[in-house]
Amino acid sequence: MAEVQQKVLSGFDTNTGNTAGRLFTAGGQPNVERKGTNFLNRFSIYHTLLNMSFRKYIILILFSYFMINLLFATIYFILGADKLGLDASNSCNSSAFSNCFFFSAQTLTTVGYGRISPTAFSTNALSAFESLLGLLLFSVITGLSYARFAKPESKIMFSKNMLLVPYKGGKALMFRMVSPTDHLLTDAEVIITLAILEKRGDKMLPQFYNLTLESNKATSLPLNWTVVHFIAPDSPLANIGLEQFEALHVEFLIFVKAYDENYSNHVQQRASYMPTDIVDNAKFKPMFYRNEEGTSTILEINKLSDYTLVQA
Amino acid sequence: MAEVQQKVLSGFDTNTGNTAGRLFTAGGQPNVERKGTNFLNRFSIYHTLLNMSFRKYIILILFSYFMINLLFATIYFILGADKLGLDASNSCNSSAFSNCFFFSAQTLTTVGYGRISPTAFSTNALSAFESLLGLLLFSVITGLSYARFAKPESKIMFSKNMLLVPYKGGKALMFRMVSPTDHLLTDAEVIITLAILEKRGDKMLPQFYNLTLESNKATSLPLNWTVVHFIAPDSPLANIGLEQFEALHVEFLIFVKAYDENYSNHVQQRASYMPTDIVDNAKFKPMFYRNEEGTSTILEINKLSDYTLVQA
Amino acid sequence: MAEVQQKVLSGFDTNTGNTAGRLFTAGGQPNVERKGTNFLNRFSIYHTLLNMSFRKYIILILFSYFMINLLFATIYFILGADKLGLDASNSCNSSAFSNCFFFSAQTLTTVGYGRISPTAFSTNALSAFESLLGLLLFSVITGLSYARFAKPESKIMFSKNMLLVPYKGGKALMFRMVSPTDHLLTDAEVIITLAILEKRGDKMLPQFYNLTLESNKATSLPLNWTVVHFIAPDSPLANIGLEQFEALHVEFLIFVKAYDENYSNHVQQRASYMPTDIVDNAKFKPMFYRNEEGTSTILEINKLSDYTLVQA
Amino acid sequence: MAEVQQKVLSGFDTNTGNTAGRLFTAGGQPNVERKGTNFLNRFSIYHTLLNMSFRKYIILILFSYFMINLLFATIYFILGADKLGLDASNSCNSSAFSNCFFFSAQTLTTVGYGRISPTAFSTNALSAFESLLGLLLFSVITGLSYARFAKPESKIMFSKNMLLVPYKGGKALMFRMVSPTDHLLTDAEVIITLAILEKRGDKMLPQFYNLTLESNKATSLPLNWTVVHFIAPDSPLANIGLEQFEALHVEFLIFVKAYDENYSNHVQQRASYMPTDIVDNAKFKPMFYRNEEGTSTILEINKLSDYTLVQA
Repeated sequence: MAEVQQKVLSGFDTNTGNTAGRLFTAGGQPNVERKGTNFLNRFSIYHTLLNMSFRKYIILILFSYFMINLLFATIYFILGADKLGLDASNSCNSSAFSNCFFFSAQTLTTVGYGRISPTAFSTNALSAFESLLGLLLFSVITGLSYARFAKPESKIMFSKNMLLVPYKGGKALMFRMVSPTDHLLTDAEVIITLAILEKRGDKMLPQFYNLTLESNKATSLPLNWTVVHFIAPDSPLANIGLEQFEALHVEFLIFVKAYDENYSNHVQQRASYMPTDIVDNAKFKPMFYRNEEGTSTILEINKLSDYTLVQA
Repeated sequence: MAEVQQKVLSGFDTNTGNTAGRLFTAGGQPNVERKGTNFLNRFSIYHTLLNMSFRKYIILILFSYFMINLLFATIYFILGADKLGLDASNSCNSSAFSNCFFFSAQTLTTVGYGRISPTAFSTNALSAFESLLGLLLFSVITGLSYARFAKPESKIMFSKNMLLVPYKGGKALMFRMVSPTDHLLTDAEVIITLAILEKRGDKMLPQFYNLTLESNKATSLPLNWTVVHFIAPDSPLANIGLEQFEALHVEFLIFVKAYDENYSNHVQQRASYMPTDIVDNAKFKPMFYRNEEGTSTILEINKLSDYTLVQA
Repeated sequence: MAEVQQKVLSGFDTNTGNTAGRLFTAGGQPNVERKGTNFLNRFSIYHTLLNMSFRKYIILILFSYFMINLLFATIYFILGADKLGLDASNSCNSSAFSNCFFFSAQTLTTVGYGRISPTAFSTNALSAFESLLGLLLFSVITGLSYARFAKPESKIMFSKNMLLVPYKGGKALMFRMVSPTDHLLTDAEVIITLAILEKRGDKMLPQFYNLTLESNKATSLPLNWTVVHFIAPDSPLANIGLEQFEALHVEFLIFVKAYDENYSNHVQQRASYMPTDIVDNAKFKPMFYRNEEGTSTILEINKLSDYTLVQA
Repeated sequence: MAEVQQKVLSGFDTNTGNTAGRLFTAGGQPNVERKGTNFLNRFSIYHTLLNMSFRKYIILILFSYFMINLLFATIYFILGADKLGLDASNSCNSSAFSNCFFFSAQTLTTVGYGRISPTAFSTNALSAFESLLGLLLFSVITGLSYARFAKPESKIMFSKNMLLVPYKGGKALMFRMVSPTDHLLTDAEVIITLAILEKRGDKMLPQFYNLTLESNKATSLPLNWTVVHFIAPDSPLANIGLEQFEALHVEFLIFVKAYDENYSNHVQQRASYMPTDIVDNAKFKPMFYRNEEGTSTILEINKLSDYTLVQA
């Protein structure tokens, strides 16, 4: 079994030119629509619940809680609300149906006060089932709520623009990124993949290049990281002017991975820059400086995208 | 302590030729039966419960819930159903045994309405134990239900056939795969291991080769991925016709791994192709195209296995 | 920042010769006693609870449950058992203290029947605290019970003996291993580290060598894996007879890692062979064969350690 | 897509010299203050709760529990304490507000005795919501408490000082580390990054070097590990005296990673040494020795930082 070193694909490679539009959105999601398969194959309930907004998540839980109780309340009501005995010791001014509803809620959450409780075989059996269902449902909600709470969020922030900076007598493409959180990312690695149309036979087909960087790894990310691609003579961008980028469907796909100590796990983040995001003859402003006492370093996150124009 | 680069085994290597039948099933499970060990050594309860169908899982939980309650109900009944006091405030039209049963259910789930509740030392002690047992059992069921819900499922789909495609003046073996889900797989890698009988001494023994691929890695899988082995002169299949594959017990073992962003974890998937799965002189139909506005790409999952025959 | 390839240590390297006895136990644990540090630094409660036997774990939980309830019962009793009201509707034939005890159990598990319930400020406040404590304690027990249940167990089995087998005109050291479980281990890798006393200056000091293996990696472990170190002229064992092994404190440390699909995680397992575990002029018996229909392979786990003597 | 080997950054690299003070604290946290971003961006609630002291965590939970119950008690009280019926069977000597408070606690924890229970629509609805809220809150607290309990703690201990030891006719920098726990760390790797001011153009800028070590990897850590950088002629410290270290802002950043079998996970730990931590002409005292029977090795953790001065 020979070991072989083989070519790496970008995932968008094609010899038909059938792709269209930008390949990745600014947030790094592929600009692809999946068809011809079952909705459930494409869709992950877990993924959706894990990543929906907090507001939607809470509304969904409240709504589901209400609907499940409504369903059980209806069955209890049909079985006979009188089969849910009320403690005689207190008068109850709720209606029969609301009694059924609140009994259902007390069963589903296993709070089980007992003021309302099943007195017949039918209601007993149904509530035995409902309390089991409650435990099973809340096992999933419990896990999910905690997973949402504890979800690794790399939250690496990228500069709004990519700059074309005078550098070593030529030009370099630069963008920068920063981790705004107080816990440290380590073992960071970045890849910039350039997508560009090139003539292959008689067609213009998207080609992909991993750009050579001044440095592509950092042992930790305590400050900002400016990623630099010097447009050397061997760069695929060597003979291409910024004004041609649009026509050649140039797109820069950024892929960062790092180890997040907080979660003892690796995090990944993607971004993408389009020709309209590129500013020529500019350079980033410094975003960190010494504190007054000279004892530590101040990093200003909100200066991440700040640049100044320079003379060409 | 010297560092040494050594040979990689397929796991099915043998110098006795004692293996039989296909090595891996189409789903990628090894075609091996384990004997001579304790059932419990071979069998993982966790694995079984995690991977059984949803229907079976629910039936198993309902059945276990019923049986545990039946067991405790019997003990309460033997201890004396009168030692589970009923609230005097409501008449109860359930029988003594069903009272015991429902009390058990109310204790196991910790819903504890209290209409039925222990009044003697014996029933108090048993119910104190049962509620603890309930918490312990549901701790496992809770974790398991959530693990089932949150289980990484790579769900990579493979084309039904492997094609023998005219390519660069010769032939290439191709199959393709696609991730039907909307969340992205990244850092994908594929290995094709060829199993084939070759003469070693006076025996025909299975030999294993990792086939050289046009590309074996992809930074992401937004579209389909066609994996290509060109049958170059140095390929172990260079001088072997498709008609000999069956006799030589040819088998292609596919092994894919990728990083699933949804689960922040690596997923692995295996598949296997047999000679009867190979179609000669065919090529895959394109499965993605531009949308009408030309702003994004449409991927048709159900065309994954579609091919057309070509002239040799 | 230059990249440097540097020497790998075994972890037992010493230039004082201060180690004693076998370095690793047969189960692969280091034969080292830690002193001079706080017990809690050395000891991980989590580790202990995760790895203790099922029987001990259950006894520990039952005992803790009993003791915590006993503690709270005593406080309730001191506060006044009359401040835990009994439902008047049923006579209770339990004593005041046992009422306190069972009330505590009903509170800790949150079953809360309500037959016994707090009627005074003091008992109400204590039970409000106890139910919170119950939730916090059971959160840890829940997680732990599930972690025990779902814990990756590589359960790789090793042959009892290491054999010295006639091989390629010389001798080879061989042992074999097998995964008895039905789910597949993949990406397996093995390292054999030889520990042996050698003269350094005027002392005999333990030296460590990673032995060259015929193959040190396997893409999967569907069958048994026989690991082979051929004692070639460049082997550190080339000029050392088996009869000298004891005197030279020879020890073979086995380290295996593999990916367990069942847990989507890597598992590691260690073992160690001492000179007394080595059998000269022997070879392993085959442990797998074709089934009767010739359609699949039978693997007999209980033959793992079977060998036959061969003529030298 | 060409594969390129590129430069590794330390994360503190700068061409402006804008950093100040020591780069990492002794505990390995970067000495950087983040500004200009939303507090919530910088701060991870999860991280804070996971890493705060046990005492603070418990106080926070007790306080939150009290405040949430106070809030709900107030609403119940406003709705009308008479709408929470008391069982008539026992007199209750608590006040109306404390009844509301304890009812809230019984609902939030789902203990639900039922002595106090909702009798009106308004209180029923609120308690149905509160019990759901309780389940959701405790789902997060449950997960968090267990995560705190099960959190991988590498707890590698580092010697207080770094020594400058006569070695091979020159000098070597040495520090040592030990894992005080009884479970084994494996696959350990260490990196020492030297930060030092060097003249670049007309500025003194911090430069970073990964120091060459006698060995940078260990297959396991059963004993202590002494890490050695021999100051060879090609070392960036070759021509720099210890007395210059302070002026050149010398700082040694230590980065260790290892696999912790206990948690089936990789752990990382960082430390840093400043010029004031370095002791010239010293060597570490041995910290392990044979036990009396000569059957195993004793490791004395508290001798980790012990050294003796030697003649230069």
